[in-house]
Amino acid sequence: MTVAIVGLGLIGGSLAKAFSERTAYQVIGFDRNPEVTQAALTSGAIQKVGEPADLSQADLIYLCVYPHAAVQFVKEQHPFFKKEVVVTDTSGIKTEICEELSSLARTHGFVFAGSHPMAGKEQSGFWASEAGLFDGASYLLVPCGAPEGALALLSETALQLGFGGVKRTTPEEHDRMIAFTSQLPHALACAYVLSPQCPRHKGFSAGSYRDVSRVARINEELWSELFLENREPLTAEMDELIRHLEGIRAAIQNNDRDALRDILRCGRQIKEALDE
Amino acid sequence: MTVAIVGLGLIGGSLAKAFSERTAYQVIGFDRNPEVTQAALTSGAIQKVGEPADLSQADLIYLCVYPHAAVQFVKEQHPFFKKEVVVTDTSGIKTEICEELSSLARTHGFVFAGSHPMAGKEQSGFWASEAGLFDGASYLLVPCGAPEGALALLSETALQLGFGGVKRTTPEEHDRMIAFTSQLPHALACAYVLSPQCPRHKGFSAGSYRDVSRVARINEELWSELFLENREPLTAEMDELIRHLEGIRAAIQNNDRDALRDILRCGRQIKEALDE
Repeated sequence: MTVAIVGLGLIGGSLAKAFSERTAYQVIGFDRNPEVTQAALTSGAIQKVGEPADLSQADLIYLCVYPHAAVQFVKEQHPFFKKEVVVTDTSGIKTEICEELSSLARTHGFVFAGSHPMAGKEQSGFWASEAGLFDGASYLLVPCGAPEGALALLSETALQLGFGGVKRTTPEEHDRMIAFTSQLPHALACAYVLSPQCPRHKGFSAGSYRDVSRVARINEELWSELFLENREPLTAEMDELIRHLEGIRAAIQNNDRDALRDILRCGRQIKEALDE
Repeated sequence: MTVAIVGLGLIGGSLAKAFSERTAYQVIGFDRNPEVTQAALTSGAIQKVGEPADLSQADLIYLCVYPHAAVQFVKEQHPFFKKEVVVTDTSGIKTEICEELSSLARTHGFVFAGSHPMAGKEQSGFWASEAGLFDGASYLLVPCGAPEGALALLSETALQLGFGGVKRTTPEEHDRMIAFTSQLPHALACAYVLSPQCPRHKGFSAGSYRDVSRVARINEELWSELFLENREPLTAEMDELIRHLEGIRAAIQNNDRDALRDILRCGRQIKEALDE
């Protein structure tokens, strides 16, 4: 079996390494940067630097580029695809992308389902990639009407790659949940470090500063695209958060100890129930 | 030398264990809960359960109770203090507390300086305490006019206890910085988990959810007191954060990719510069 990985950044590079180290797949790697494909080849992350015609060998294609670039790649390269090849993306937003790729799949006779590997780190690029990046992480699978055989293949492969579990979801549920679990913390981290106190934090800070600020090391090109593609769910989550922050702020401003304690208790109880 | 530790919760219990394991001090422990003092004695965290008269043996007194309770303890028990004893607190806010305790020190002939050990965890109480809690953490020292000898004693002791360094600050600077580095992330964690999406996060979440929500396991009694004692700096930080969140929200709402990328880039650059 052969997998083609399109884009050898943090996610694509890590997938390539995990495929090569942990599965029997032959890995063909594509990247617009020849230094990256060369490094991937030399390090054994891929077994072949891909040319478009090589796509015809692939039984599985992983699109690991920015969302719009993934759609563009398929529009241009589908004539090379093997019939019935299983194509998946790794994009952090799903509603629009899955619709476009599903539509292309129906038109051109390949199979598409969406994937979102729930792992990452604060560095980007092939140089930061590692075979163990996905160990124990959740693999979100968006069926998009793909046949059960293709979904089973993606699920089994994910477990071989090191993921801790596969969760099936719809594009809409995915985007609503990701707005909360991932996009909002990234927006928050950037907003947080803009405080005038931030540059003087050293000596005054510990774990809670470190945790909130961690993902401020953001790739602003990628995340601008992800945020704008998920406008409604993300602005709804931001409104929700701002509303609760304003509630806490009002209780403090009014010196209303009972109201403040009630909000904090509510937060604690939710978190404790989820951690059990 | 003898140290009296007043309050054997997470911080006082951890200090007691660190003093007993890592210094030559005899440790006398005070707690209103006799089960706690008994457990502390049995475990070797303290060498003696304190009675008020025992305070006269102490060369150093650590107040590890809630801020107002610390002031109250000194008001009631100072007649037992040895002349020139060095008293310090461990409270998370300083302006009001340091003023009250400094004034009591001047009136009654003991020495006071404020301390804030920058460490903690999501559990509270003696049962969660550990000698290594402060390993590598910052020790904030608020001189409050105490003589250099007392400040040197507190600093050297902090390093013996495992702290990574001592930073001297004023009550006002302390409270302004802590509003940003510690109080805001705690308020934020509670506001964050109040989202209706939160209870369904499993499978959809990874490190960024975990990091932002971690300190939602808050002791709401203690933190309500800390927030209300630091009203102005904390509401100012909350306003700053809300303003930046609204800036990001507006860029998303207006589909303004350039503005959004500029804000995210600014956050990334601040964070990268600080992490170097």
